[in-house]
Amino acid sequence: MKTLTVDLGERSYPIFIGQGMLGSAELVKPYVQGTQVLIVTNETVAPLYLQQCEKAFADFDTHSVVLQDGEQYKTLEELNKVFDALIGNRFDRKCTLVALGGGVIGDMTGFAAAAYQRGVNFIQIPTTLLAQVDSSVGGKTGVNHPLGKNMIGAFHQPECVIIDTDTLNTLEDRQLSAGLAEVIKYGLIVDLPFFEWLEENLEKLLARDPQALSEAIERSCQNKADIVAKDEKEAGLRALFNLGHTFGHAIEAGMGYGVWLHGEAVSAGTMQAVYMSMLMGDLTSEDEKRIAKILDRANLPIMPPSVEEMSKQKFLDLMAGDKKVQAGTIRLVLLKAIGQAYVTGDYPYELLEQTLDEFRS
Amino acid sequence: MKTLTVDLGERSYPIFIGQGMLGSAELVKPYVQGTQVLIVTNETVAPLYLQQCEKAFADFDTHSVVLQDGEQYKTLEELNKVFDALIGNRFDRKCTLVALGGGVIGDMTGFAAAAYQRGVNFIQIPTTLLAQVDSSVGGKTGVNHPLGKNMIGAFHQPECVIIDTDTLNTLEDRQLSAGLAEVIKYGLIVDLPFFEWLEENLEKLLARDPQALSEAIERSCQNKADIVAKDEKEAGLRALFNLGHTFGHAIEAGMGYGVWLHGEAVSAGTMQAVYMSMLMGDLTSEDEKRIAKILDRANLPIMPPSVEEMSKQKFLDLMAGDKKVQAGTIRLVLLKAIGQAYVTGDYPYELLEQTLDEFRS
Repeated sequence: MKTLTVDLGERSYPIFIGQGMLGSAELVKPYVQGTQVLIVTNETVAPLYLQQCEKAFADFDTHSVVLQDGEQYKTLEELNKVFDALIGNRFDRKCTLVALGGGVIGDMTGFAAAAYQRGVNFIQIPTTLLAQVDSSVGGKTGVNHPLGKNMIGAFHQPECVIIDTDTLNTLEDRQLSAGLAEVIKYGLIVDLPFFEWLEENLEKLLARDPQALSEAIERSCQNKADIVAKDEKEAGLRALFNLGHTFGHAIEAGMGYGVWLHGEAVSAGTMQAVYMSMLMGDLTSEDEKRIAKILDRANLPIMPPSVEEMSKQKFLDLMAGDKKVQAGTIRLVLLKAIGQAYVTGDYPYELLEQTLDEFRS
Repeated sequence: MKTLTVDLGERSYPIFIGQGMLGSAELVKPYVQGTQVLIVTNETVAPLYLQQCEKAFADFDTHSVVLQDGEQYKTLEELNKVFDALIGNRFDRKCTLVALGGGVIGDMTGFAAAAYQRGVNFIQIPTTLLAQVDSSVGGKTGVNHPLGKNMIGAFHQPECVIIDTDTLNTLEDRQLSAGLAEVIKYGLIVDLPFFEWLEENLEKLLARDPQALSEAIERSCQNKADIVAKDEKEAGLRALFNLGHTFGHAIEAGMGYGVWLHGEAVSAGTMQAVYMSMLMGDLTSEDEKRIAKILDRANLPIMPPSVEEMSKQKFLDLMAGDKKVQAGTIRLVLLKAIGQAYVTGDYPYELLEQTLDEFRS
């Protein structure tokens, strides 16, 4: 088992990465406050891992709630089921919530923990690659609004993150690929050597080689932890994680939540950002081909929806609602080079339009 | 105009108390971040003060949303109207929300500000006595759940609190009395001289003497600010503000939100706490009579609902869901003497039952 730390002073917490940890009572015990535990999971994960997870919390007064699976259920309404379970079982302020599932479950459970009685503890047990390398670390929590992703939420850090790579054995191929989009992102934004490592090891990752997966998760989490420690509330640096996300969130909302997986939308959105970085004169067409190649090898879409599916105007409308917008300007994460991202609102608007016009299947 | 300060380090903020401040652009300007302002109010307050309030924010891109009036609308569902307005108007992270109304509007607007894009600024402009002396100060925000008051929320401090006592001129008598319940509370829990001042000046307050109201509001806010500065997140001391609230919240939920006003339920709940403090051997029956007298003079109920309206068991069930409950124990705020409250979970349970049995109309 490897342990990383997210360094946030008093609110620092460990990320445990290893195999066969899901039922370990010893591992979780120091991170449970009080006596009451609510495991929040979904209908896909529950039959696979809920029983095993409950074992780890057998010494506590443990309940569970099973939500519907999918980004389309990441709503205030579905969240209310968690509050119903908490209040129905008379959970007090010293209770602990456990997020057992992918990014949607982690984000919703974290927000429920942030808001229940104005804040209780929670533990992240991510079971998808995407949640393990990205959403479970860093304390961003929330739900979607029909007009925008993660518009309602809180910064609320977990007590610990438990990444049991065994859970990836049951992950659908499509979900594994979606997670790889976020893994590749770290290479693109700040870590060229990691990007090169990924180019060499992608087949191993797709074949679910435990060693390679563990390495990819560790390096991703380390990158995330380093940046979160420097910029917890996204005053600057942290926005780099949103490479491909402003385009990608528009795709998710525009096509209907759940139609494109988040990682798929990020992949296509990354290519849009890459195309625009090329128009900006920073990336070469060799860079573009190299990035498209690794995403394609990871079985990820490298083109946004067609103009018929999503007009330029629809893209612009949805992007104008992005959380990075300031004073009407759509701020974008672009690349100076592979391994070197930056955030900017200062670009010729026509280059954004050109990207949305030209870069289409 | 008088200015008090809630001393919370970096998040310190002023409370302005005076007359004719509602339309003052100068006053609000330093506390508005960015260019977008959303005023949240309700159908009762909007026709009275919305136009005037909008004047103060005329230099900004100002919108407003009007919610339904009443504790029964303090729900996640109603809150969604605020998010709809924010997202529909493309409000970004630098926007400012303004709560124009009573405690329900303040709590809901504060929570919307806490959760929108994971946190934006807000300003409190309380227009009821209750909100002016209590809920607008201290950063507690939230909504109700059918099974418990304020169960879903956040600690989120405003940028400033603007208390224009002119708004009390249009307040219903019943609402004025409800506010006095919280004013009297400060005397009971920590401030005997203020309690004595209230005994002397109650008629002036009921007659809405501006001088007396201003004095009562200032002393209440000062008490609140002092304790919040010492215990922002209610680790201890701050729980004293909940004198009468554990009983009172049960009355509000048990009778149906909106049937008893919050201040009315707090008044009857305070008398229950007083009766129990007498059973505990701390208060004398003279103390009890004295407290009942001032609440009665303020036209507040001094008896909880009858046994037929709310059984002992219903009380206990609802109190067991209170936010102060820890490990199954209902923690209560009781009085050692007038002006001296304490929080305890260590009391003979039969005294609580006796209180719920005997102290009834």
